[in-house]
Amino acid sequence: METPNTFALHAFKALCDNADHLRVKKHVLDNGATIIDAGCECTGSIEAGLIITRLCMAGLSTVSLTMAEPDSVWPTLIQVSTSQPLLSCLGCQYAGWNLQIKENDKTYRAMASGPGRIKSGKEKLIEEFGFTDNAESATFVLEADSLPPLSLTEQIAADCGISASNLCIAVTPTGSLAGCVQIASRVVEVAMHKAHELKFPVEKIVEGIGTTPLPPPIANDPITAMGRTNDTMLYAGRVHLFVDVDSDQAQSLANDLPSCNSKDYGTPFAELFKQYEYDFFKIDPALFSPSCVTVSSLISGKSFSSGKVNHELLNKSFAL
Amino acid sequence: METPNTFALHAFKALCDNADHLRVKKHVLDNGATIIDAGCECTGSIEAGLIITRLCMAGLSTVSLTMAEPDSVWPTLIQVSTSQPLLSCLGCQYAGWNLQIKENDKTYRAMASGPGRIKSGKEKLIEEFGFTDNAESATFVLEADSLPPLSLTEQIAADCGISASNLCIAVTPTGSLAGCVQIASRVVEVAMHKAHELKFPVEKIVEGIGTTPLPPPIANDPITAMGRTNDTMLYAGRVHLFVDVDSDQAQSLANDLPSCNSKDYGTPFAELFKQYEYDFFKIDPALFSPSCVTVSSLISGKSFSSGKVNHELLNKSFAL
Amino acid sequence: METPNTFALHAFKALCDNADHLRVKKHVLDNGATIIDAGCECTGSIEAGLIITRLCMAGLSTVSLTMAEPDSVWPTLIQVSTSQPLLSCLGCQYAGWNLQIKENDKTYRAMASGPGRIKSGKEKLIEEFGFTDNAESATFVLEADSLPPLSLTEQIAADCGISASNLCIAVTPTGSLAGCVQIASRVVEVAMHKAHELKFPVEKIVEGIGTTPLPPPIANDPITAMGRTNDTMLYAGRVHLFVDVDSDQAQSLANDLPSCNSKDYGTPFAELFKQYEYDFFKIDPALFSPSCVTVSSLISGKSFSSGKVNHELLNKSFAL
Repeated sequence: METPNTFALHAFKALCDNADHLRVKKHVLDNGATIIDAGCECTGSIEAGLIITRLCMAGLSTVSLTMAEPDSVWPTLIQVSTSQPLLSCLGCQYAGWNLQIKENDKTYRAMASGPGRIKSGKEKLIEEFGFTDNAESATFVLEADSLPPLSLTEQIAADCGISASNLCIAVTPTGSLAGCVQIASRVVEVAMHKAHELKFPVEKIVEGIGTTPLPPPIANDPITAMGRTNDTMLYAGRVHLFVDVDSDQAQSLANDLPSCNSKDYGTPFAELFKQYEYDFFKIDPALFSPSCVTVSSLISGKSFSSGKVNHELLNKSFAL
Repeated sequence: METPNTFALHAFKALCDNADHLRVKKHVLDNGATIIDAGCECTGSIEAGLIITRLCMAGLSTVSLTMAEPDSVWPTLIQVSTSQPLLSCLGCQYAGWNLQIKENDKTYRAMASGPGRIKSGKEKLIEEFGFTDNAESATFVLEADSLPPLSLTEQIAADCGISASNLCIAVTPTGSLAGCVQIASRVVEVAMHKAHELKFPVEKIVEGIGTTPLPPPIANDPITAMGRTNDTMLYAGRVHLFVDVDSDQAQSLANDLPSCNSKDYGTPFAELFKQYEYDFFKIDPALFSPSCVTVSSLISGKSFSSGKVNHELLNKSFAL
Repeated sequence: METPNTFALHAFKALCDNADHLRVKKHVLDNGATIIDAGCECTGSIEAGLIITRLCMAGLSTVSLTMAEPDSVWPTLIQVSTSQPLLSCLGCQYAGWNLQIKENDKTYRAMASGPGRIKSGKEKLIEEFGFTDNAESATFVLEADSLPPLSLTEQIAADCGISASNLCIAVTPTGSLAGCVQIASRVVEVAMHKAHELKFPVEKIVEGIGTTPLPPPIANDPITAMGRTNDTMLYAGRVHLFVDVDSDQAQSLANDLPSCNSKDYGTPFAELFKQYEYDFFKIDPALFSPSCVTVSSLISGKSFSSGKVNHELLNKSFAL
C-alpha cells in the first residue's frame, strides 16, 4: 500500500510526462522543486484537473466527468467517490494550509491542499487525526493565479522536512479548466468538513459519493470564478454518505449538513463576498456544504435525506 | 488471455495488498488458504465490493458507482456491463454452489460464487456449458456472516483439485457495504439466470448492461438485508441485453423476463420470505429478475422492452 | 508521451491478445499486415468497440457506456470526452480517407479513420493542422462489411511509408456491435468537423464532452445501420465544448452548430439517403452535427446552448 505522498508523486509524474497533451507547463526551480502550471501561463485542461484531483486525494478516490440528463441546463457534471473520506478528503484534499510569503513588496498568498499537508504538520486537523506519511516527497495543489516564488518553496520543503528537489506543486487558478474541475471535485470534502464543524465524529463517515455541475471556467475574474466554484456545491452539489453510527446521529447529520441551514444561503457566493467586503471569514461557515445530502446508517440501515438542488440560483451564478 | 481464476487471483491480491484502505481483513489459515473478510469482523467498503465484483466476474465486466438524477430518492446506483455475459455471469458470478459443513454442533452454510466454481465442477450449469479453467488457483466469493471453517476450505480445495494454499475466498455479509455492492452487481446475472430458466439459448445473449440502486447496508439483520438486495433488482433493476437471435425470440425474452411476470411480484422480498416461512425454495423462481428489460436483436435490429421500475415498492423495501 | 500511432499500437495489441473474449478475429496477411475483424465474419462486441474507439482517438479520450435515466426509451448511451479534441477527433478519429481499390471486377471501398491517417498524408485536413507522427507503425479503423484485400494494405503501407508488417487495421461493419459503438463515439468529432466547416478556428476548441444513445446494431442492412448511426447523433447527440474565444464567437458557434440548422433536418437519415438516390454528397453537409450543444467561453465565462433532442425522430429511426 502506497503512502499518500507516494501515490501523489506517481500521479504528479503523469502530469509532467504528458504536459503537452494536458496543456500544462512544467517548471523546475533552482532548488529542484517541480511546479506544474495548470492554468496560469497556459490553458490547462479538464484531464489535468482530473489527475490533479486524484493526486490531491492520494489516489483514494474515483473521479470522473459525466453528462447530466437531457433537460439539464448545465450538461457536464463531476462525480467523485471515496471509501476513505476522512484520509482522502480531510487528510489530503482539504485546502487547509494558508500559505503566504512577502517578497520585495508583494505578498504571495495561496491555500494549499494535497497530501503534502500531512508532512508539513502545520494544521490542527492533521494533528487531530494523527495522519502521518514517511514518504520522502511532498505533493501540493495550490489554488492561485501565479506560480509560487522560490522562497516559498524553500519554506514549504523545510516545513515538510524534505529536500526541495522532492517537492511537487500543481498550481490551478480558480477560473481555469483544471481549477474548476479540482475545486468542484471537493463536493464530498466540503460535506466532510461541515460534518467536522458540526462536531460529528467524522471517522465514522466511511463512504462518500457526490456529484456537482462543472462550473464554467472564466479567465481573469477570480471573484466570479470563486463564486461559481462555491455555488455549484452549495446549490447543486449532492452527496451520499454512509456512516457507522445509529439512526439518531445519522438523521441529525442529514438535517444539519445541507447549505440551506446557513443564514447566508440564497445569495450567489460572489455577491455575498462583496456584501461582506471581500472578507472570507465573515461568511457563515455553515454555508460551505452540499445542497442536498443522504446519510445512510450502516447500523440501523435507515437513510435520511435533506436539502435540495436550487436550479435558479445555480443558473444565476453560472450565467453571472 | 488470462483464465477466469488467473484474473481473479490478481484482483484478490489487490484486496490483500490494500486491506487497510479497503477496511478488509486478511486471514491465512493453517492449510494456507487465504480468506478476505470484507465485512464480518470489519466494516469493509464499497471499493472492496467493486473489486470483489470484478474478481467474481473474472475481470470480464466493467462495474462502477454512478449517481442517479437529482430527483431520485435513492442517489447511488451500481452499473455493470459485460461483453461476456454467459461466462462472466453464469460461469462465474452466479451463486450456484451450495456449501455446507457440520462442525461440532454447528452447521456452516454459504452460497459460493466466483470463477472457482468452474474448477469445483459441482454444478450442472458449469457442466452444461463446458466451462473449464486450468489455473492452479481457485477464487470464490461467499455471501455469509462469518468466515468458513478450516474443514470447509479443505473440502473446497479438494473439490477443485488444488492445494489449499492456492484457495482464495472473499466473504461478504449480505448487509455489509461490500455485500450490498457485489450482490446488486448481479443485476445482469439475474437476467441471464432467468433467461436460462426460460430455456432461452443464453449463449446467444452476447452483451448485458444493467443498473440498479445500491441497497442501503444494514448490520445484524440478514433478513432485511436479503430483502433489499433482492428488491433493488426485482423492483428497480434495469437491463439491456443484445441477442444474436431474430425478433420472435428476442420479443419473447423481453416479455417473459421482467419480475412482474411472477405471481410473487408486489410484496417486499423480506415479507414474502416470512410468508413462505423462511423457505427460499417456495418462492416463485420467476420472481428473480430485473424489473425492466430491453432486448435488442442483432439480426433484425429490432428492440423490445417490458417491465417498469416500481418506485413505491423500492422505497418500502429500502426504508423497512 | 506516446505518439498517436504508438498508443494505438498498444491498444491494437490488446484487441489481438483478447480476441476470443472480444469475439473478434485476428488475421495476419502474407505481407505481415494485421487485420482485426470486429464484425464481418464474427459477432464482435461492445467492449471491442470501446477499445477500437480509444485507439481511433489515439488514447486521448475517455469513452464509456452509461445507462440513461429510468424513463428513457433507449437505455444505453455512449459517453466520450477529450481534452485534445482537435488532435483526437479531427487528427485521428475523423473518417476522412476515402479508400478504394479495384481487384478483378470488384471494387473494395471503405472510409478509413484512426491515427494512421496522420502518416498517410493524403488529406488536406491533416496538412492544414500540421499533424505528424514518427511512429514506425500505422493503425486504422475501417467502416466496412468485409476485410480489405492484400493489395489495398500494400498501398496503405506505401502511402504511410511503413513496412506492411507494421500496418494494423480494425474493420467494423456499420451495423455490428463494435461498429455502432465506435461510430456513435464520434459525437464530439462530428461537432468538431461541423465547426471546421463553419470556419470556426477549431484549434480554439480545447475540450469536448458528448453523449448519444447507442444505436441498436442490425445485421445485413447497411442502409438502416448507417441511418441509425447518423440519426443518434443528429437527433439525440449532446455535446459540451469549451472554447478559448470570447462570447461572440462562442455564441455563433452554439447557434450554428446543431443539426436543426440544416435544411435536411427532420427526416430519418436512411430515408433521406434514399430520397437523394444513395448519393451521400447530395446531403446537406450542415446536417452532420449533434442535436444540441453547449459552448462555454473560457474567456468571458459565458455559456451558450442551442438545439434539442428529438425523441420522436430517434424512436422512428431506431425502430425502423
